[in-house]
Amino acid sequence: MAMAERFLASKFNKPDFNIVDHYTYGIVSDGDLMEGVSQEAANLAGLLKLGKLIYLYDNNHISIEGRTEIASIEKLRPRFEACGWHVAEVEDGNDLQAIEKAIQEARDETSRPSIIAVRTLIGYGSPNKQDKASAHGEPLGEEELKLTKKNLGWTKEPFLIPDAVLEHFRKALHKGLDSQIKWQRLISEYRRQYPESAELWREWVQERLPEAWVNSMPVFKADEKGIATRSVSGKIINALSPILKNLIGGSADLAPSNKTLIIGEEDFKSPEYKGRNIRYGIREHGMGAFMNGIALHGGLIPFGGTFFVFSDYMRPAIRLASLQKIRVIYVFTHDSIALGEDGPTHQPIEHLASLRAMPGLNLIRPCDANETVEAWKIAIESKGPTALVLTRQDIPVLDRSVFPAASNIAKGAYVLKDAEGTPDCILIGTGSEVHIAIKAAELIESKGVKVRIVNMASWRLFEQQAEEYRKGVLPPSVICRIAVEAGSSFGWERYTGAGGGFVCRDGFGVSAPPEVLYKNFGITPEAVAKTAMNLLSKNKKYTY
Amino acid sequence: MAMAERFLASKFNKPDFNIVDHYTYGIVSDGDLMEGVSQEAANLAGLLKLGKLIYLYDNNHISIEGRTEIASIEKLRPRFEACGWHVAEVEDGNDLQAIEKAIQEARDETSRPSIIAVRTLIGYGSPNKQDKASAHGEPLGEEELKLTKKNLGWTKEPFLIPDAVLEHFRKALHKGLDSQIKWQRLISEYRRQYPESAELWREWVQERLPEAWVNSMPVFKADEKGIATRSVSGKIINALSPILKNLIGGSADLAPSNKTLIIGEEDFKSPEYKGRNIRYGIREHGMGAFMNGIALHGGLIPFGGTFFVFSDYMRPAIRLASLQKIRVIYVFTHDSIALGEDGPTHQPIEHLASLRAMPGLNLIRPCDANETVEAWKIAIESKGPTALVLTRQDIPVLDRSVFPAASNIAKGAYVLKDAEGTPDCILIGTGSEVHIAIKAAELIESKGVKVRIVNMASWRLFEQQAEEYRKGVLPPSVICRIAVEAGSSFGWERYTGAGGGFVCRDGFGVSAPPEVLYKNFGITPEAVAKTAMNLLSKNKKYTY
Repeated sequence: MAMAERFLASKFNKPDFNIVDHYTYGIVSDGDLMEGVSQEAANLAGLLKLGKLIYLYDNNHISIEGRTEIASIEKLRPRFEACGWHVAEVEDGNDLQAIEKAIQEARDETSRPSIIAVRTLIGYGSPNKQDKASAHGEPLGEEELKLTKKNLGWTKEPFLIPDAVLEHFRKALHKGLDSQIKWQRLISEYRRQYPESAELWREWVQERLPEAWVNSMPVFKADEKGIATRSVSGKIINALSPILKNLIGGSADLAPSNKTLIIGEEDFKSPEYKGRNIRYGIREHGMGAFMNGIALHGGLIPFGGTFFVFSDYMRPAIRLASLQKIRVIYVFTHDSIALGEDGPTHQPIEHLASLRAMPGLNLIRPCDANETVEAWKIAIESKGPTALVLTRQDIPVLDRSVFPAASNIAKGAYVLKDAEGTPDCILIGTGSEVHIAIKAAELIESKGVKVRIVNMASWRLFEQQAEEYRKGVLPPSVICRIAVEAGSSFGWERYTGAGGGFVCRDGFGVSAPPEVLYKNFGITPEAVAKTAMNLLSKNKKYTY
Repeated sequence: MAMAERFLASKFNKPDFNIVDHYTYGIVSDGDLMEGVSQEAANLAGLLKLGKLIYLYDNNHISIEGRTEIASIEKLRPRFEACGWHVAEVEDGNDLQAIEKAIQEARDETSRPSIIAVRTLIGYGSPNKQDKASAHGEPLGEEELKLTKKNLGWTKEPFLIPDAVLEHFRKALHKGLDSQIKWQRLISEYRRQYPESAELWREWVQERLPEAWVNSMPVFKADEKGIATRSVSGKIINALSPILKNLIGGSADLAPSNKTLIIGEEDFKSPEYKGRNIRYGIREHGMGAFMNGIALHGGLIPFGGTFFVFSDYMRPAIRLASLQKIRVIYVFTHDSIALGEDGPTHQPIEHLASLRAMPGLNLIRPCDANETVEAWKIAIESKGPTALVLTRQDIPVLDRSVFPAASNIAKGAYVLKDAEGTPDCILIGTGSEVHIAIKAAELIESKGVKVRIVNMASWRLFEQQAEEYRKGVLPPSVICRIAVEAGSSFGWERYTGAGGGFVCRDGFGVSAPPEVLYKNFGITPEAVAKTAMNLLSKNKKYTY
């Protein structure tokens, strides 16, 4: 959020018009600071000199298992100073003046983020549970609650707010209202003096897109050699960036591989903060969290790239994006064993299944360049997060005068090629394996079998279609259905049905050139054709 | 690994017999140190005073996107000193004497782990690529390779090892052999003087289990109110710990919730290192990595607990355990929306599916106390990692004089209750939802429908059974099959088939008491019965 504030301030503020000008406060706990992602965030925030970022650290020395010293040795001050932070300490969490002073000093820091360690006592005032782990995970209980209130001199009824307290808190409403009015006057005057900037501001915060923005998107001609969809994605980012000036992102140190760099654009860095290339560093979890913050702030469209297999590192952040329905775009490249020699640690297998299973996340695996364009359109127009799953290797660009329009992937799945009449067999492919399905179909057709090819780039979008459409694409009467995907077969029975089959890879990959892997794992047109002929021959008997 | 070394040294070493006595070296890169997990590891290693852990940091200032300064500000020395480490620097990566001296100094540190930052130049000697990012991700190329060799004065053929070099390296073989012989002499003498310890040592490193170890396992009587399977797991850990003295573990600060504490046992800490309760801290990813290290070291059986939803944080480590086929035991408690008020951030939904999809990981979700015992047995005897997925809430203990033996879960799935003759309908449940299936079966039976209940605790184990057994449990002729599970339906079509249905939860959870959630999400015996009756009524028409 502090990153978004700096970028928007640099974009919109004018002399005497600090339209974007806020602090970002975080309340952090002992536990938060033990999680590694806190180090990833601290390092980047320090590098970016986010002076308006202020953490209030609830420093109570207690976690669920007991005193934090049983699990942590680290000293806060050198750890955060090593990352370029201002570190302050408040000895008594009930000393409001000391806290206020520390906050003011933190606000005065212009080029260092601040962490204020406020020493507190968990279960404050409870005679038997104060400063104990039992105050962390459990309620005090009726008896202890009574003792605590007595100890603190609280004689009122439960849930009663005394008038003096109410009055004090209500002041915040007025204060807030005053600030709002002041800001609204400012923006009104800004609108008069800078109408174009004001209009752009409104467009961004209302999440509207400029007219005809899609016209900037590239179109790719049919090409058998083709192009890697990661490269297409790079071209799209660069085509969109002059039109969508709020598109901002980068990679977890894989920009040359993920093709996430906006060419000619500066890095996002201090003190200008106007560049749109974010150097997230080798921190996938942090990157996911930064993107969530940027999206939640509003005004910007964040994207971030890494190898698909490393989506595991950022999974907690992806889940939070899904839960919060925020527009975050993941550029996951090197999407299968086809990445080759880097081997099984880098080759995704179960990642398609495990991310398809996540509620609220739209995963799209386009089969060629023009579908990649459509996938990016969907991601930009989405209200929630989108995972774009892209190849490392070149794949053909389909001839759309022969095949239906690439825009069909907006329906999740569509018939790419059909037989006359009812097909005997349906091949369902995604991404790079659609091309294997196309070649397999020729082999199968040569034996007089009628084949349909379905391209299923996004399960979620397909599941959002009307039942009629879905049954049109995958007619219940066609029992022989084969999924072709260089990843786990897990979940595919949903579409292949009881009489179907797979040409997938359920075990880990190995290190070898992609051609060798596809051949050895049997993900070939010949294997698909063989599976189809076998299934057809035992059709109707095959039910489990 | 350094933790395992300390524990085993404390257990087996005797005066004049340092049977376990080795350093653990790690080679770490700029990228490794940017990943948050490196901070989690540094903090715990410092706290545990692992003086025999030595990192050699390949400090080349270059990552894939360029100089590390574009993404990192942090200073190594204060960061690691804040965690209680010894930090050394070597200015020239080719100065072997300086490196050797630094290593010797690190070895002399008895109570601080060491990091030696060795300044190196990536692509050393290459006239055009040295110290550049291009030397990171790409090969030098033929031309540059020639120039580099020329520059370094290397005139030999490619892949040729000069005699002097060969001789030098071959010395290592002799040195290793000498060390091995010396150690073997030591252990022979040790065996004479301490035969019991020597036998135990052999048992541990050979991964054998003591005779009749399973007899220590608790047995639970039928009980309608029952017990949470997490609590059972806690009893098992405590029953096993006196027999399996190499069982060592803890939780990521959730021991009271995960029930991972070995009662009466000390914490694993400096300087004794003999306790078996590891305080992993609030570091799930780190915990996963520590367990991998302990398992790879050999001699020990590591386990670690957290809430099931936080398995996402440690997913990269789980994947490495699966890939390396190492015995790591995950105690994942709070396994569904039934955890209640903590809400959707804490309620797992897609986690069953996403971990079932991971190659090599065995996930077991037992339906009662005695199955939890069996699940632990399987985990202990396994050659690979096992995820035990356990309830927060009490669930009934089944009467095994009525139902088949709990040991049946070794087959992954089994018929828990059957109808006479061929069933009309099969209910497939896992974990806590097996009990919903049992109640649903009564409702369905009351309408004259013949019901079978299948308990499917582990998909992986079931898939390892012979086809005959699998078809016996789920006969292809029975089309009406319903999966009952408080998690995503993703993947269940594999067993419910084309004519089946689900009573699952595909969206995120919400914060409410468990009873309210089950009712509102329709995971009830009534909903299961209704689904079954609907499916039966449209049977045979239902194919998609």
